[in-house]
Amino acid sequence: MVLRKEFFDLPTDMIYLDGNSLGPLPVAAKARVSDMIQNEWGGQLIKGWNASGWMAQPSRVGDAVGRLIGAPTNTVVMGDTLSIKVYQAVAAALKMRPNRRVILSDSGNFPTDLYMVEGLIRTLDQGYELRIVAPEDVAGAIDERVAAVMLTQVDYRTGRLHDMDALTAAAHNAGAVMIWDLAHSAGALPVDVARCECEMAVGCTYKYLNGGPGAPAFIYVRADIAPDIDPALAGWLGHDAPFDFDLGYRPAAGIERMRVGTPPVIQLAALEAAMEIWEAVDMSDLRSESIALQEVFIRHIETRVPQLTLVSPRDSGQRGSQVSFAFDQGYAAMQALIARGVIGDFRAPNIMRFGFTPLYIDEADVIAAVDHIEVVMGDRLWDNPTYLTRQRVT
Amino acid sequence: MVLRKEFFDLPTDMIYLDGNSLGPLPVAAKARVSDMIQNEWGGQLIKGWNASGWMAQPSRVGDAVGRLIGAPTNTVVMGDTLSIKVYQAVAAALKMRPNRRVILSDSGNFPTDLYMVEGLIRTLDQGYELRIVAPEDVAGAIDERVAAVMLTQVDYRTGRLHDMDALTAAAHNAGAVMIWDLAHSAGALPVDVARCECEMAVGCTYKYLNGGPGAPAFIYVRADIAPDIDPALAGWLGHDAPFDFDLGYRPAAGIERMRVGTPPVIQLAALEAAMEIWEAVDMSDLRSESIALQEVFIRHIETRVPQLTLVSPRDSGQRGSQVSFAFDQGYAAMQALIARGVIGDFRAPNIMRFGFTPLYIDEADVIAAVDHIEVVMGDRLWDNPTYLTRQRVT
Repeated sequence: MVLRKEFFDLPTDMIYLDGNSLGPLPVAAKARVSDMIQNEWGGQLIKGWNASGWMAQPSRVGDAVGRLIGAPTNTVVMGDTLSIKVYQAVAAALKMRPNRRVILSDSGNFPTDLYMVEGLIRTLDQGYELRIVAPEDVAGAIDERVAAVMLTQVDYRTGRLHDMDALTAAAHNAGAVMIWDLAHSAGALPVDVARCECEMAVGCTYKYLNGGPGAPAFIYVRADIAPDIDPALAGWLGHDAPFDFDLGYRPAAGIERMRVGTPPVIQLAALEAAMEIWEAVDMSDLRSESIALQEVFIRHIETRVPQLTLVSPRDSGQRGSQVSFAFDQGYAAMQALIARGVIGDFRAPNIMRFGFTPLYIDEADVIAAVDHIEVVMGDRLWDNPTYLTRQRVT
Repeated sequence: MVLRKEFFDLPTDMIYLDGNSLGPLPVAAKARVSDMIQNEWGGQLIKGWNASGWMAQPSRVGDAVGRLIGAPTNTVVMGDTLSIKVYQAVAAALKMRPNRRVILSDSGNFPTDLYMVEGLIRTLDQGYELRIVAPEDVAGAIDERVAAVMLTQVDYRTGRLHDMDALTAAAHNAGAVMIWDLAHSAGALPVDVARCECEMAVGCTYKYLNGGPGAPAFIYVRADIAPDIDPALAGWLGHDAPFDFDLGYRPAAGIERMRVGTPPVIQLAALEAAMEIWEAVDMSDLRSESIALQEVFIRHIETRVPQLTLVSPRDSGQRGSQVSFAFDQGYAAMQALIARGVIGDFRAPNIMRFGFTPLYIDEADVIAAVDHIEVVMGDRLWDNPTYLTRQRVT
């Protein structure tokens, strides 16, 4: 990819293999936020809601995200956080299958997805069960008691990739609703929610989509079911006529009913600018380049750094856009690497995770990163008390 | 107040009486966001979570908001939207009173608060009732069936002010949980959540607090009850150890459990800068100046524009920081006023609403606004087809 010019230069002392956690700053995002703040907020004040299209922004940006995941126009809307969107989706699914009491997920799901379901179940207090199985056991665990299958396509630890089409078909065969979390998929690899026919999908935009820290989440609802969704989070901006200020809630016609409160206009300005980069990207090309970078990385690590054990699937078709290695002192080793400017991240208990983002990372970066990793591991630089104190990283 | 220098100049052709909807742009907010985007997001990338304190920001800013509403340190946290925070608060309250089935509110509450309760009730499907009475009937309607009383202190249409101390005491006398929405109170008048002893309070920050469009909401939970709250929205950033990535949820010790997903870091940067203005503000002084501006406005309008009928309480002690007048063609009249640069807003069915914000509005602004209103009403400028088409305004 030759899109590096779309981003501000990464710090010269940094090799950034963490775009799967937080993407870098697009040039257009900085300019757009600056303009929005001065000329829209500062210059138009309340009139910005109409004059600058703030009110329509969650749908407009939703369509831009939708194009990357195979969603038709008017089926994706932005807002809130991924946690909130998971709650909305699962609550809606349970209403669609009132006689079933199981939500099925897997142990590779990101914890907040599971926590939000737990919170929903405790709130409902009606005998629901969150059943968590190993990723490879999901297909066999879908039975007629399952109301909803809720999975993250790419395992945040290992990078293992679920087959969306096959698992959605399995869920539907058993009469269950399928919800996909695309946090590590959108902008990382080709996704086609329409083809797989899942009912709902959710995801975040600060990773591969480069929307900035705290960028809002998205939710997709299949067009044919959207009119029947009974929103648990029935906010005024999901109302059919929010500015009538009726005392009673009446949901908007389609996907708009998944809006809740006032949208985060500044964050959306950054994200909307970041999404423009994707207009020049072919997702198949990006996927090929991502795999090429990952293969170089794995080959060099396995040749030069035998202390690390690959925990991602070896078959590139089974991986997202990240590669993870296990190492018992992985936390300290990652701290040592970060101190040398190679930014990956650590996930408990022992996983060193590296993300590959061809928009702004190339093979030279990958080989330079391996050079550092070889030094850190060969010279046991991780064996340093300053690297052993656990700090919060996201 | 002599704090106008803290804000960018309002457009010279604008008299802004809508700071109760969206505050103007603080100089410090623009600078802070610009710096945050370039140097933190752009320069630190993922390291910003620790290096720039993004992770602690929702609590740090929460404490700043808390100082304006009488909340002790570590009892307020920022995030999400006001709609979401209402849901969290009411869901928590219902768990605290498991044998009661009524949520009491009033017809002067902002609709999204009522909608969110409706959505919660429909989701629970356990015989809960949202009882909506007239504002003056609230105290008499609190009985032993009421689990929670949930009110907005300042009526968004009329500006009518509830007595927080008295109504909280009435709720507690009946054994109900008290939740206050301070959307039109925080930064508008002195508030003391600790003195009134309410269990929870919520509010937004884009109005009087000038946090920018889509600025995050706040939630206060009384310190003694926070450890027993069972969060309905059990997000990972409310987990006791989010970076342990446990499969099971375990709430954080206190107010932190009301956090949900990843915080909106850019919006919080703007808000944090906006909150610095308040360090120089005495809320009693601000309240006095607000009332003085309102009194001038009412006196001039009633003398010079008899077509308008005051619908706000005449007693300034019973009003928030806004004044509303009824006029049957209020929508068109407000459009005509806005066309002349006087920015108030319209609330169905017939209310013309004007907000008073002494941080950046003075008596000369108020009198100039009345001059325009007199012309619009005296010359029937509202009687123009271009002003009759309803558009969305917020």
